[in-house]
Amino acid sequence: MLKVAVVGASGYTGVELIRILHNHPEASVTAVTSEQSAGKSISELFPSLKGRCDLTLENLDPDKISEKADIIFTALPHKAAMGVVPAFLSAGKKVIDLSADYRLKNASEYEKLYQQPHLSSNLLDKAVYGLPELKRDKVAVADLVANPGCYPTSIILALAPLLKEKLVNISTIIADSKSGVSGAGRSLKVDNLYCEINEGFKAYGVGGTHRHIGEIEQELSLLAEKDIKISFTPHLVPMNRGILSTIYLESTVALESGRLLDMYEEFYSEEPFVRVLAKGEFPSTAFVRGSNFCDIAVTIDKRTGRIILVSAIDNLVKGASGQAVQNMNIISGFPENMGLEMLPVYP
Amino acid sequence: MLKVAVVGASGYTGVELIRILHNHPEASVTAVTSEQSAGKSISELFPSLKGRCDLTLENLDPDKISEKADIIFTALPHKAAMGVVPAFLSAGKKVIDLSADYRLKNASEYEKLYQQPHLSSNLLDKAVYGLPELKRDKVAVADLVANPGCYPTSIILALAPLLKEKLVNISTIIADSKSGVSGAGRSLKVDNLYCEINEGFKAYGVGGTHRHIGEIEQELSLLAEKDIKISFTPHLVPMNRGILSTIYLESTVALESGRLLDMYEEFYSEEPFVRVLAKGEFPSTAFVRGSNFCDIAVTIDKRTGRIILVSAIDNLVKGASGQAVQNMNIISGFPENMGLEMLPVYP
Amino acid sequence: MLKVAVVGASGYTGVELIRILHNHPEASVTAVTSEQSAGKSISELFPSLKGRCDLTLENLDPDKISEKADIIFTALPHKAAMGVVPAFLSAGKKVIDLSADYRLKNASEYEKLYQQPHLSSNLLDKAVYGLPELKRDKVAVADLVANPGCYPTSIILALAPLLKEKLVNISTIIADSKSGVSGAGRSLKVDNLYCEINEGFKAYGVGGTHRHIGEIEQELSLLAEKDIKISFTPHLVPMNRGILSTIYLESTVALESGRLLDMYEEFYSEEPFVRVLAKGEFPSTAFVRGSNFCDIAVTIDKRTGRIILVSAIDNLVKGASGQAVQNMNIISGFPENMGLEMLPVYP
Amino acid sequence: MLKVAVVGASGYTGVELIRILHNHPEASVTAVTSEQSAGKSISELFPSLKGRCDLTLENLDPDKISEKADIIFTALPHKAAMGVVPAFLSAGKKVIDLSADYRLKNASEYEKLYQQPHLSSNLLDKAVYGLPELKRDKVAVADLVANPGCYPTSIILALAPLLKEKLVNISTIIADSKSGVSGAGRSLKVDNLYCEINEGFKAYGVGGTHRHIGEIEQELSLLAEKDIKISFTPHLVPMNRGILSTIYLESTVALESGRLLDMYEEFYSEEPFVRVLAKGEFPSTAFVRGSNFCDIAVTIDKRTGRIILVSAIDNLVKGASGQAVQNMNIISGFPENMGLEMLPVYP
Repeated sequence: MLKVAVVGASGYTGVELIRILHNHPEASVTAVTSEQSAGKSISELFPSLKGRCDLTLENLDPDKISEKADIIFTALPHKAAMGVVPAFLSAGKKVIDLSADYRLKNASEYEKLYQQPHLSSNLLDKAVYGLPELKRDKVAVADLVANPGCYPTSIILALAPLLKEKLVNISTIIADSKSGVSGAGRSLKVDNLYCEINEGFKAYGVGGTHRHIGEIEQELSLLAEKDIKISFTPHLVPMNRGILSTIYLESTVALESGRLLDMYEEFYSEEPFVRVLAKGEFPSTAFVRGSNFCDIAVTIDKRTGRIILVSAIDNLVKGASGQAVQNMNIISGFPENMGLEMLPVYP
Repeated sequence: MLKVAVVGASGYTGVELIRILHNHPEASVTAVTSEQSAGKSISELFPSLKGRCDLTLENLDPDKISEKADIIFTALPHKAAMGVVPAFLSAGKKVIDLSADYRLKNASEYEKLYQQPHLSSNLLDKAVYGLPELKRDKVAVADLVANPGCYPTSIILALAPLLKEKLVNISTIIADSKSGVSGAGRSLKVDNLYCEINEGFKAYGVGGTHRHIGEIEQELSLLAEKDIKISFTPHLVPMNRGILSTIYLESTVALESGRLLDMYEEFYSEEPFVRVLAKGEFPSTAFVRGSNFCDIAVTIDKRTGRIILVSAIDNLVKGASGQAVQNMNIISGFPENMGLEMLPVYP
Repeated sequence: MLKVAVVGASGYTGVELIRILHNHPEASVTAVTSEQSAGKSISELFPSLKGRCDLTLENLDPDKISEKADIIFTALPHKAAMGVVPAFLSAGKKVIDLSADYRLKNASEYEKLYQQPHLSSNLLDKAVYGLPELKRDKVAVADLVANPGCYPTSIILALAPLLKEKLVNISTIIADSKSGVSGAGRSLKVDNLYCEINEGFKAYGVGGTHRHIGEIEQELSLLAEKDIKISFTPHLVPMNRGILSTIYLESTVALESGRLLDMYEEFYSEEPFVRVLAKGEFPSTAFVRGSNFCDIAVTIDKRTGRIILVSAIDNLVKGASGQAVQNMNIISGFPENMGLEMLPVYP
Repeated sequence: MLKVAVVGASGYTGVELIRILHNHPEASVTAVTSEQSAGKSISELFPSLKGRCDLTLENLDPDKISEKADIIFTALPHKAAMGVVPAFLSAGKKVIDLSADYRLKNASEYEKLYQQPHLSSNLLDKAVYGLPELKRDKVAVADLVANPGCYPTSIILALAPLLKEKLVNISTIIADSKSGVSGAGRSLKVDNLYCEINEGFKAYGVGGTHRHIGEIEQELSLLAEKDIKISFTPHLVPMNRGILSTIYLESTVALESGRLLDMYEEFYSEEPFVRVLAKGEFPSTAFVRGSNFCDIAVTIDKRTGRIILVSAIDNLVKGASGQAVQNMNIISGFPENMGLEMLPVYP
């Protein structure tokens, strides 16, 4: 049984890791940490866990945690993560980092976006951007996996087949994304209060100012083997979970919609968690809620010739903790879908 | 591998049965029926299932279904259920009926509440009211399990310890219950439209007119060994899943709150799915969402001497499909919690 | 034109006062205060007001505010209110206080419930509990109106006719109340975050510990001319606005439901904002949203003989700011419904 | 006092017209019709109206209605509207039609989009597309106003200043729109049930198949004096009210963001209901809920050079009934904002 530590277990990705791992036949959570709530039971913070996971939250002492676990999930805010990841690596542990700290290859890009120097930029080369559908082989041999952001997962998986085939006019990509509220975490801000969000819909980070744009463009550029700039606008939807991205682009060639669909179905034919929808079907976040699926629809707007991609994930599962467990499975040599076969909760 | 049929698979309890059984290691859904959607794939109706359960919906032919399955879940509306249950029993199948048709022991009570004659009242004696915490032994040897209603489950489990100890002034029981919208099913009524429900809260069936009152009083009376009448008021909460019942009663003796809590903890100490909350903790439907738990809190209002019980379940799991699988496990000799260990989805 | 100050304008009752007063033909908001946001425009805090009310928030200096306004609404937290109300009264201003500070007649009861000494208990006798339907005449000549709490408004209006007629077995009253989230204000607590509340329903303050119980029992006792203790359980509904109270009681006499309804219709026949519903109709908070209405239904549960009352208000309007404007109208000699004739926003 | 009839009063735009007109000082609703509910009181259908508007719903007899009213709002589905509008015009009444029947100038375009022949195409030339900010003068002298659709209102107002100045590369326009559920009306479809929508977000009409695209392109083309084709994708947000459109485009010239904002502020400087937001502010539907405002933000994405416009309206007010009353005011010579000064309901 693989022993797993969840470092930073007091947030939504932490409790989601515990929910998923609870049903994993080969892994077991043996340590959970929280600076603010050390000494309390994790089930005091999240009564949903009561009777099934009542571990006591500890302070984050990398030595002590390393003794208790084989693999470490760091579910900390950015900056905090890079403060401890090197210690875990030094202790010979594999680390799956759910923060943004090791996703960018370029330290100065990190410093620009996150407004602070990188504390262990030497690790950026070693870190593998853990999108299994595209980097399964690298993940398998990684010590440090940078688990992708939620928006990036929904956008990169949608664009990958077309970019890999070099069929995209790369200056035309626009990603209009909509996220549930859990993506903002459990932090105390007036903007996150129930009454501020309920019965409202808004855009934020308009004009390319959201930090995820760094990793999105990095990975899209790798796929296209060209430097890509996109327009990316995130929005906030009054619901707990889910991201839906609507992506517009022009192709460099005249594509027929049937052929386009075939290309997507083939590209993802072996993937356990990507579902390419049939013609005329479109994703809803409701159909992936609580599951590790990414649903993708491809369409051609005949009137303008544009290609429109729509993708949906659960931001806490495929967009965070589920993908992290998928990476754990790959690293550990388990079947990739082990413990991840829960169906969406509908309705 | 136990072969399972879901008869009436186009409603919310049907798709929830499929969701739960998908992760059951010893059972497999082999047939699904729907009169209205026969010929379609179940995943057309519920795209959440796509790629995992794409069975074709069949017409309800008991002979054909009996050939394909060892055990039958009837997730039909009342009246429709009793039209086919006898045929499945005749074919030697075990039946777990999620409708109301076999819950009441008294056919004339059924006829009064459901406004129609009972078509197989001879089976009422054989049917076991499938609340495992109270009737595990009878379920184990039953051919026909009448799976309890959602409101009744939340109310009976909350009251059972006190009633069994004969500590209740039985004329004082008031159950004020609040339900999510999935309890109303997928039926087309203006009242169930999104805009009619969202941002509103209302009472309905005020004055003891909700049909569930029949089975609630039947089971409470059995526990108390006395004829009980209660006041029961259901309400509709703008959320998909969950029932919370707030129950008021007076005791026949002076009870101290610590002793009351001990009594509940002891009564449910061996139960895998009932969680008695510590002093000062109160249930939320959010902490049981998607799981088979029933959370219960017990309190004494010192100012008035009343006992206040609060219980929470997911109406589609412990209040319907999860409990049905729990009954299936008991009937089939599987561990009672098999396939039911999914943790609540939070948030 | 009556000049009005809103002291403590950065909360939800503050912005709601401004919304309502904006359409009042005889009153105009001339000053708004906020300690935390002084110097900012009120429309920066609440962009809904932009272009219609862009007053600059000031620090709370009672002398300066008194120069600018004829009447003062104090929409401050309890304790803060009693720190400034005496100064406004000394300056000869009329005050309508939306906090709890002047609602209780008994200073020691206040101290017990609010865990602090009362700083101007000499004013408690002068203050009028501003429920216009019951105290219109006293409000008309008051200098200080204690605007009722939201739960109390919904419960007292529902019970008043029966209590005034002395028809209630006073030891049997149970009020099971459900509130939208805006009742908790705009304060930063994890419990008020969107994801903690959405898709969940919970009880709180179980066992008679909610502070509103003080004013509820005070006013019910006045109506009954007897000392009343009730059981009161508040719950939280995932919606912004609305309170629905379901109230159970036994009568001292045998009442017929038609006669009961007549009594309610007569009692409230002249009231502009209380709507007694016809037989078989029940309130929903959706039907009063944004308006100053209180809808009430009365029923007899024939099976148990209990009377069941259901009432619904918008907690921010009839439960706070609308009622405050109603009191302002009375004090100022305006028609009582002036500026309050906005219809519910449905859906 | 202007006498007003609401033809087709049983839907959401009907009840919203009644809500708004109730506070209009110069207009009064004198007749309401509904084929399905004739003989019932409108307040039976919408208990929110009880005690304030209890008119009896009549069958739609144009002669009888014409006797009772000076101006007619037709809030019928498309096709039904054109069945009666000519009769009202023949009777010498002014008509404001909230359906789609008279919005398109080209009958064959209508027939293509709405899959049926137009029954009174002779009126298409006379009908004025009633977007007051752009066509105030024509509305003033119109007999028949085609009240714009909700999506079109949000998109056309956002684009008008740039298009009028001929600054848009017209082949680059993409409108990604998100709507609350009331836009779908009160019609009985499984897709509109609470549980199907709540906690989900989805795209629909992907690829330019939504019917509103006809009027959007017609009006944008008029502004640009060129034939425009856009990409338009509608989405469904789990909330009752509100539309937010995020619009992407490229300019034909290099624009600086300050100058762009100035242009918008100037263009709309005299408009009572359009609020151009300051730099760094972005609209939320929550800030216009229940009001006739259209909030617009303009931004330049420096990384790609694209212009991004974000607009928000309440689909039932500025997107339907509020705009209809605004048109009524213009036609009747009332101040344009009469009865429309209700502030947004927040929260």
